[in-house]
Amino acid sequence: MVLLSGGLDSATVLAVARDRGYACHAISYDYGQRHGAELEASRRVATELGAVEHKVVRLDLGSIGGSALTDDAIDVPETPSEGIPVTYVPARNTVFLAIALGWAEVLGARDLFIGVNAVDYSGYPDCRPEYIAAFESLANLATKAGVEGERFRVHAPLVDLSKADIVQRGQQLGVDYALTVSCYSADDSGRACGRCDACRLRREGFAAAGVPDPTRYA
Amino acid sequence: MVLLSGGLDSATVLAVARDRGYACHAISYDYGQRHGAELEASRRVATELGAVEHKVVRLDLGSIGGSALTDDAIDVPETPSEGIPVTYVPARNTVFLAIALGWAEVLGARDLFIGVNAVDYSGYPDCRPEYIAAFESLANLATKAGVEGERFRVHAPLVDLSKADIVQRGQQLGVDYALTVSCYSADDSGRACGRCDACRLRREGFAAAGVPDPTRYA
Repeated sequence: MVLLSGGLDSATVLAVARDRGYACHAISYDYGQRHGAELEASRRVATELGAVEHKVVRLDLGSIGGSALTDDAIDVPETPSEGIPVTYVPARNTVFLAIALGWAEVLGARDLFIGVNAVDYSGYPDCRPEYIAAFESLANLATKAGVEGERFRVHAPLVDLSKADIVQRGQQLGVDYALTVSCYSADDSGRACGRCDACRLRREGFAAAGVPDPTRYA
Repeated sequence: MVLLSGGLDSATVLAVARDRGYACHAISYDYGQRHGAELEASRRVATELGAVEHKVVRLDLGSIGGSALTDDAIDVPETPSEGIPVTYVPARNTVFLAIALGWAEVLGARDLFIGVNAVDYSGYPDCRPEYIAAFESLANLATKAGVEGERFRVHAPLVDLSKADIVQRGQQLGVDYALTVSCYSADDSGRACGRCDACRLRREGFAAAGVPDPTRYA
């Protein structure tokens, strides 16, 4: 079970999971994010990287608000900020992992893959290794499969990598990053703003990896 | 932040939280459940028991399937079963608590209330005290508020009570159980089937508490 956003990191994770021999089911969320172009990208990535199945689950996090990514009243910043930025979506990875866990349990899948990253992680609390370990423990208490003695594992293969490392790993595995969209403010055709945190981290990653940046900028 | 299903247990929890002096925000989920009458009940209960605000969040757990409550291909059983029953919805409380946590963080609320019960709990793994404790730990790792040193608490005031105890507690607090719907197969006007596990536990609870059962049966 691979959490797939359509961005650079999760595309790499899908390639890593496939490389480890897993038949991958990919899950994406239509959660009221500004960057709907990411969802289109997730469909292309799932197809190109050979996911067995891809599901887009709708949930209305926009009604909760509280983030620049889901609330039109909060602007996406175009300069780096101190601390946890306004693009933080409260409890997002917990919600995403929980639904993925539910689908995994239905399918009989026991391995969840998520593209969190603690190096270039923008300060999001739910991208840290201790958070991932805590979710794995919870998964094994929360489920029928866990109670019956099976074991869920949550894999975060990018957690210790820099963006440059991630790009290089994906290159080795043949990921076509032109299919991916990372920008928080991408336009409807998926062209990136080039100014938000996500664009900045991505561009610096390609530069540091010595890989040409295939991103289409507006 | 009170998770409110519209059933007997969560109505009691809302009354308990109000009695402890909290200004209560209630959250319900339209998750593709068979028993849509529960949602109507949640609106009545939120109003009658004085919630400050009530939000119904839509999410499409039906697309995941795997439960008699969300998948029309699986019948709701009318006789008690051994082990964890087919009405178990994979990872449901984890999904529900995660979204509630997100809204709580946005509001500045730090206390979450949930009506899980480990006595008459039908064998659901995500209704046990150890599960609730694990979610509380996760909440404090997952969130900006947690990282910044605030502390979320997850309250499960019914966890050790029998259904009869719950009914008596609610009676003391003035809960009108005629407003609530527990049945897994309630009809559109909220009348209960009288045969499913939820109906059986509820009816036995009123009988054991010596309280007249106000449920409207079909």
